[in-house]
Amino acid sequence: MSLEKTSFIGIDVGATNTKIALISKQAFILSRSNFPTKFYQDKIALIKKILNEIHKILKPYKPSAKHIGGIGIGLPGLIDHSKGIVFSLTNIPGWKDVPLKRILERRLNLPVFIDNDVNVICLGEYLYGAGKGSRNVIAVSLGTGIGGGIIINGSLYRGASFSAGEIGHIMINENGPRCGCGRFGCLESYVGNYAIIRTAKEKLKKKTSKILKELTGGNFKNLTPEYLNLAARRGDSLAIEVWEDVGRYLGIGLSAIVNLLNPDRIVICGGVSKAGNLLLKPVLESLKEYSLDVPFRAVGIVFSKLGDDAGVIGASCLVNQGG
Amino acid sequence: MSLEKTSFIGIDVGATNTKIALISKQAFILSRSNFPTKFYQDKIALIKKILNEIHKILKPYKPSAKHIGGIGIGLPGLIDHSKGIVFSLTNIPGWKDVPLKRILERRLNLPVFIDNDVNVICLGEYLYGAGKGSRNVIAVSLGTGIGGGIIINGSLYRGASFSAGEIGHIMINENGPRCGCGRFGCLESYVGNYAIIRTAKEKLKKKTSKILKELTGGNFKNLTPEYLNLAARRGDSLAIEVWEDVGRYLGIGLSAIVNLLNPDRIVICGGVSKAGNLLLKPVLESLKEYSLDVPFRAVGIVFSKLGDDAGVIGASCLVNQGG
Repeated sequence: MSLEKTSFIGIDVGATNTKIALISKQAFILSRSNFPTKFYQDKIALIKKILNEIHKILKPYKPSAKHIGGIGIGLPGLIDHSKGIVFSLTNIPGWKDVPLKRILERRLNLPVFIDNDVNVICLGEYLYGAGKGSRNVIAVSLGTGIGGGIIINGSLYRGASFSAGEIGHIMINENGPRCGCGRFGCLESYVGNYAIIRTAKEKLKKKTSKILKELTGGNFKNLTPEYLNLAARRGDSLAIEVWEDVGRYLGIGLSAIVNLLNPDRIVICGGVSKAGNLLLKPVLESLKEYSLDVPFRAVGIVFSKLGDDAGVIGASCLVNQGG
Repeated sequence: MSLEKTSFIGIDVGATNTKIALISKQAFILSRSNFPTKFYQDKIALIKKILNEIHKILKPYKPSAKHIGGIGIGLPGLIDHSKGIVFSLTNIPGWKDVPLKRILERRLNLPVFIDNDVNVICLGEYLYGAGKGSRNVIAVSLGTGIGGGIIINGSLYRGASFSAGEIGHIMINENGPRCGCGRFGCLESYVGNYAIIRTAKEKLKKKTSKILKELTGGNFKNLTPEYLNLAARRGDSLAIEVWEDVGRYLGIGLSAIVNLLNPDRIVICGGVSKAGNLLLKPVLESLKEYSLDVPFRAVGIVFSKLGDDAGVIGASCLVNQGG
């Protein structure tokens, strides 16, 4: 098999899994692999594993593989994309001020670009997904943490010290619940995965749910956002209420973005976004309530189009953006 | 007198006063005038008055006046800077979809650029004031309303429908007081001029203040932020408390900007900023409390350097920016 120079490798390093894909110029995935990140807790071991996987994915294409355009990597942490340094990673220990770009470029003899994972998702959705055609796009990633990526006038905006987009820690209620960051009332403390489970458990103290009992095997310790999604789709009123609450608070958080940045589009990504309209309806209601009319009318709230592939596709796009 | 081609006219249209200045390439004010806006309630009357003032300010420089670089105007409302249209103005009635740029260019035979007043202040502070040397600058204007201007990577960011920067209507407490916009708990409902007076009056119900009694002539209906500033500087504990409360809420509002945009600098402008350190200390305390560490460490909170001239200087800068 032969490879165009305009093909890229995109890598999505997650706390749980790392995905690697060979991606065409048109953002089609030509081949892919993945491995559990936690098996490579040591920094050197993880870098070696990534190098191995790159060689493996390129093997069928040799000798044309040397013509590949470059490698892009998204990582969950604070990253200097211009110097290619990983300052720190969330839930992956041992990474502090790692010059990952330089390390990989020396070993691979290919251009390597790295950036924060949600920035990379935002770039992917902007170029090939749900943000296509807009100039000012915000990606909001819902999961254990709530992250954000910002495209301003068609370019990723990273801020003064590479931490722009920390949507999850916008405070929406000073008397709110304690957040994982130690503060109180952050958006994440209302709509992060743990918050969703907490909200459901609070409701289960007052009210029962046959469907959730069945799904969790009678033990609510097994409760997940996925079960709450399934239950709501089967008409479970308690689960529907949970999504209404979560959506309402998400809408409040998004209203800060809408009032401040007046974006064209907000792309909702991540596992929880699978709740779809269960979430979107209350989001739009509270977004309308808490946003000024002019920016509210200008913004489209949409779900990710690239789904689980947003990370690898977005990462591969870093190459053409020059990082 | 002779004028360089690189001189500009800057106009700052306010709901109360309109200021006009002739400004050098180096942003020095060569001459200035102003008039009360409210005497020209009618749109045509106001435009005529502005034209008259332009002719008057240029008269001493004729015939070189025709060599002037252009005219920039900041107005308090929603403005399409690229087409030069005023969609609406706040507290100046009768302005709806006015092609002000075209109207003035036809009459003056000079390039005219218009933009929102806080955008213009932000541009001025970025180029010649307290934002100089930073790449990502937010201007926050404190007064009856709370406005914001955003410089991203050295350029004004206006958003998808020209309304970016509506910092005053970020909701910081869903159970908060009613805001002028009709919503509840907006930042403006905590730190706008009316909110400052309301906070003081609430405190005056429980506690007395000799200094404020003296300053207001015994009638608290005369209370203004200026009196609260004077009283606090004279050691009045109630007035000091008011600024602590206001600063605390302002810090909460700014934390949304810091977490989301990771700016280099936030420039606090407008009348209330005269409270200086009375305000800055509680702002920094609550900003630190509600911001993530990385963006908190990156941001400098400073006061306007151009003061009351920020509007005219910033407006004149529009000309070289091409609007």
